Amino acid sequence: MPALFIAFEGGEGSGKSTQIVRLRDDLLAQGHRVFATHEPGATPVGKAIRSLLLDTHEPITPRSEALLFAADRAHHVQTEIRPKLAEGYHVLCDRYIDSSIAYQGTGRTLSMDEVEQLSDWATGGLLPDLTVLLDIAPERGLARAGGRSWLSGRDRLEREPLAFHERVRQGYLSLARRHPERYLVLDAGRPVDELAAEIAAAVRARLAEQPPP
Amino acid sequence: MPALFIAFEGGEGSGKSTQIVRLRDDLLAQGHRVFATHEPGATPVGKAIRSLLLDTHEPITPRSEALLFAADRAHHVQTEIRPKLAEGYHVLCDRYIDSSIAYQGTGRTLSMDEVEQLSDWATGGLLPDLTVLLDIAPERGLARAGGRSWLSGRDRLEREPLAFHERVRQGYLSLARRHPERYLVLDAGRPVDELAAEIAAAVRARLAEQPPP
Repeated sequence: MPALFIAFEGGEGSGKSTQIVRLRDDLLAQGHRVFATHEPGATPVGKAIRSLLLDTHEPITPRSEALLFAADRAHHVQTEIRPKLAEGYHVLCDRYIDSSIAYQGTGRTLSMDEVEQLSDWATGGLLPDLTVLLDIAPERGLARAGGRSWLSGRDRLEREPLAFHERVRQGYLSLARRHPERYLVLDAGRPVDELAAEIAAAVRARLAEQPPP
Repeated sequence: MPALFIAFEGGEGSGKSTQIVRLRDDLLAQGHRVFATHEPGATPVGKAIRSLLLDTHEPITPRSEALLFAADRAHHVQTEIRPKLAEGYHVLCDRYIDSSIAYQGTGRTLSMDEVEQLSDWATGGLLPDLTVLLDIAPERGLARAGGRSWLSGRDRLEREPLAFHERVRQGYLSLARRHPERYLVLDAGRPVDELAAEIAAAVRARLAEQPPP
């Protein structure tokens, strides 16, 4: 059975990691092979890039930041995502191309198109079969994420002003309108079980659509 | 007087840093302001990228490597090179765009055109007024650099096989043929004083061509 590449997108505190665990467990229970991963920072090279991106106190210029995220993604796709898909694993990825487009291409000084072209080159054109967008108002998401950050410290992106996170949200929604065939947009404020059931149903529908091997 | 942006290019052991010191001293003696810098790793962000690029023992994929060099360059151009040029400093840079094109665009799996486009985006299109290519046969350059590396340890690029460095050399020569208006190609095997005099003369000629402020 062909493997699916499923990306989870959404602002801080939208519940992506919870839903990835739920979908992973659901697919495993059905006998599928599943590889759950995340961006940035899933590989050893990526971990070094991630700490540079999120922990630094020197302001990183927008182009440099976009290039660093793209470098992390290029390495991740080539060394983990493509090999796992080729081995028949469904790949669930916490953030992917659309995070870069929404965070670097709308919130700051770069255009969505140029960030999209950069990510497209970095990945050799690998797009998800399905992108799950967990949509949430920034006030609410940041309040959720803020609770966690008492333990872990707030990172650089969480320190951005609310208007930045609102532009990110609108960026995601505009991507979903532009690519309806690969987007599932859900209200992240709904109960976790309901969201998990809806995501599982969408994935089952995609699997049923796959051509036989 | 308008400031010049001068890049020094060439393989390992071609004598770039020696000639940068000579040109800097010559320009300072004439009363110019000079900013000497290098890539990769001239800024705090760049230092972290450089150590990732040169010290890692995990193989970095070619696209990721090209994106990391571009990230270093984007930050360097925006935070140091452009501001210094705007303040009237002549900027002397040890390696710039053509290093990426020659090292990533010919030696490995990427094309010169795609690496050039990437660097062009990273820098917002900033090209040197003059590129000094110190051309040397790889056997000879590596022997010189190898002498130094007894002290400092060989880095990742110096460990590449000779054929890689030969492709890099041919890449540089092809760039020089493609952009003769901004290239000064010199045989790096000539005496240091002769090379310094020829570079100083070429820079004086460029300065004489500059329109009055």
